[in-house]
Amino acid sequence: MALPSGNAIVAQSGGPSAVINQSLVGVIESLRGRDEVKKVLGARHGVKGMTTGQITDLSGVPAETLEAVARTPSSALGSTRDKPDRGYCEKILTALKQNDVRYFFYIGGNDSSDTCRIVSEMARSTGYDLRAFHVPKTIDNDLMENDHTPGFASAARYVAMSFMGDNLDNRALPGIKLNVVMGRHAGFLTASSAMARVAGGREDDGPHLIYVPESPLSLDRFVADVDGVYRKLGRCHIAISEGVNDEKGESIGAGLIKGEADAHGNAQLSGSGALGDQLVELLKKRLTPAGGKAPRARADTLGYAQRYWPDPSPVDSKEAREVGRFAVQTALKGDLTEASICIRRVSKPGEAYRSEIAAVRLDMVAAKTRHLPKEFLANGNNVTPAFIEWCRPLVGDLPKVGWL
Amino acid sequence: MALPSGNAIVAQSGGPSAVINQSLVGVIESLRGRDEVKKVLGARHGVKGMTTGQITDLSGVPAETLEAVARTPSSALGSTRDKPDRGYCEKILTALKQNDVRYFFYIGGNDSSDTCRIVSEMARSTGYDLRAFHVPKTIDNDLMENDHTPGFASAARYVAMSFMGDNLDNRALPGIKLNVVMGRHAGFLTASSAMARVAGGREDDGPHLIYVPESPLSLDRFVADVDGVYRKLGRCHIAISEGVNDEKGESIGAGLIKGEADAHGNAQLSGSGALGDQLVELLKKRLTPAGGKAPRARADTLGYAQRYWPDPSPVDSKEAREVGRFAVQTALKGDLTEASICIRRVSKPGEAYRSEIAAVRLDMVAAKTRHLPKEFLANGNNVTPAFIEWCRPLVGDLPKVGWL
Repeated sequence: MALPSGNAIVAQSGGPSAVINQSLVGVIESLRGRDEVKKVLGARHGVKGMTTGQITDLSGVPAETLEAVARTPSSALGSTRDKPDRGYCEKILTALKQNDVRYFFYIGGNDSSDTCRIVSEMARSTGYDLRAFHVPKTIDNDLMENDHTPGFASAARYVAMSFMGDNLDNRALPGIKLNVVMGRHAGFLTASSAMARVAGGREDDGPHLIYVPESPLSLDRFVADVDGVYRKLGRCHIAISEGVNDEKGESIGAGLIKGEADAHGNAQLSGSGALGDQLVELLKKRLTPAGGKAPRARADTLGYAQRYWPDPSPVDSKEAREVGRFAVQTALKGDLTEASICIRRVSKPGEAYRSEIAAVRLDMVAAKTRHLPKEFLANGNNVTPAFIEWCRPLVGDLPKVGWL
Repeated sequence: MALPSGNAIVAQSGGPSAVINQSLVGVIESLRGRDEVKKVLGARHGVKGMTTGQITDLSGVPAETLEAVARTPSSALGSTRDKPDRGYCEKILTALKQNDVRYFFYIGGNDSSDTCRIVSEMARSTGYDLRAFHVPKTIDNDLMENDHTPGFASAARYVAMSFMGDNLDNRALPGIKLNVVMGRHAGFLTASSAMARVAGGREDDGPHLIYVPESPLSLDRFVADVDGVYRKLGRCHIAISEGVNDEKGESIGAGLIKGEADAHGNAQLSGSGALGDQLVELLKKRLTPAGGKAPRARADTLGYAQRYWPDPSPVDSKEAREVGRFAVQTALKGDLTEASICIRRVSKPGEAYRSEIAAVRLDMVAAKTRHLPKEFLANGNNVTPAFIEWCRPLVGDLPKVGWL
């Protein structure tokens, strides 16, 4: 099938990550010098900028600037939380036609994949030859078809470094320390706190308890778990997902927090310390011995730093760049008019880490959510060695710990 | 004056820092091979371990292990929040005598300096030849006589990196973003958020507003400040100290948070997201136009990571080691029987950064608090260029930002 000739456009969507600009630069650099591609355009703030004319010509940006952008966290073109419905997608298609765009690359999560899918379908039904490709990005690691998503490994690295330092802090001043980790539906990021144990290397290293949305949690069980560790070690170090659910499948966090819905209909869980503070109050109340003193207990809510910390995982930086390049290569091969790009792990457990990039149908990724597989979960309050082996190559080297 | 012969003991106190183990190792390595010093002892959990017999012999720890410990954040010997009164200090002195300790090195903040002072005075009055030296440590940078304290620069580096990434995140998804920074009484750490602007290099880089305990804040003024920036830029990026005060000198945070006092009588401000969450609620309420939508507003409370992040400032690592060494050298010179060690800046503004280490009287540091000087404060909501020049050499290199 002959390739159409026209402009290309690239945009970024959803929560930024530490390496989303690697994917952006991977797309831009691979589009250059191709006969079919006239101009390389960028839409500011994702589909919002497309429909409001915030479009910039990136064709002449120097390679040196692109390299600096690639190493910069957050979304250099700006992002959006807009999740287009069909009417919105019609406006996007109109804007693409007006700008003579034949190649559309959208970097984001499963909502962005869905936007690609709808716009591509509309283009086809109106006889407009558009090539629409979804480039994966999410720190939550919740995209189907991916072993892991660009952005996850760097966020996991931040979480691992946090828990590593926090475990040492909790050893120095023993007590109960609880850290709330991002993740509405998928517990991958919270689970990565376990990598702190690898860095520490002592048997009683924290986190001692890890709670993820995939394992329902009763507050009674939670208090009993903490009590058990605290009695044994004189301290307890806890990781808990913001999206952890009770036995009825309802979010413990959402129940505690005065709801606010963002445009996607998701309860606002990030940017609030309420879940951690409430759980600490609960622990103090329930674990104070009769006539005794409440245990020292504190919560931190790991914030947006999880998605922008400027010390990305090396594997993540490399793969994020590659998925951007692969999207363009696939588009310009011409046999696929639309696809979602994904990362697959080729190496088996025990082998040196190797991954490959592949293209899958948009509807295999669009508007779906991947969860922590059962073989990574243990006892409702921990992860398995299989998870640690899976996560280890992703987070990169962690600082070595010295002991006295 | 002849030097006494006996054991030396070292201990760590208060909130850990990323480089407090550099000071610990600086003390240990400088004590070795000295004729006057028989054994190098370490007390676990500060003065608490001294009085409960948790004392370990560090004389034989290999140099390689010491180097690994020096690079490890948090307090390798453990820490304590105990602030000894005279009765407690008597127990400490008894323990020192029982362990034949003639050299006592206590790494900590102004409370630790006070403990050294009381124990030293008691030793003198009982005719026991004890040499007591305070080695400075605090991320708050609130010790008198110091240009800056070991631990501060690494915490400032973490804060600067946070605000740098967070400013990019806030550009990508514009709104109001507020980050609460540690600091009960001194605003140095919150002020260091301004270094994010140096890293970014654009005129509209955040943080746009910086609130510290040294400048009283009215909530009306706060709302008006945020409104002004938000109208102009379509976003507003804010740094605020946990210990910020209202016009009556009362802590805004403490008023919002159900109080809990630690052993020092300080209200518990860290480890709670309440201040940030409450301020965001206030902004949403006051800045929602009649019949309109509340602005997107979020708070993060920077947590314990400020004191343990395992990427210390290079200047901080070096100086923390040096103050430990200097304490031992001063003790073994013999002309002083007690002192607090401090860091002074020798270079003038505009010159390449140089510092020197000095010894001052314990009572010049003990139980006192240093504040941000007036020449570092601007308009009640910002810092001056003089602060930025002062802070710049301390935080070390920050990642470069690329722009499209």
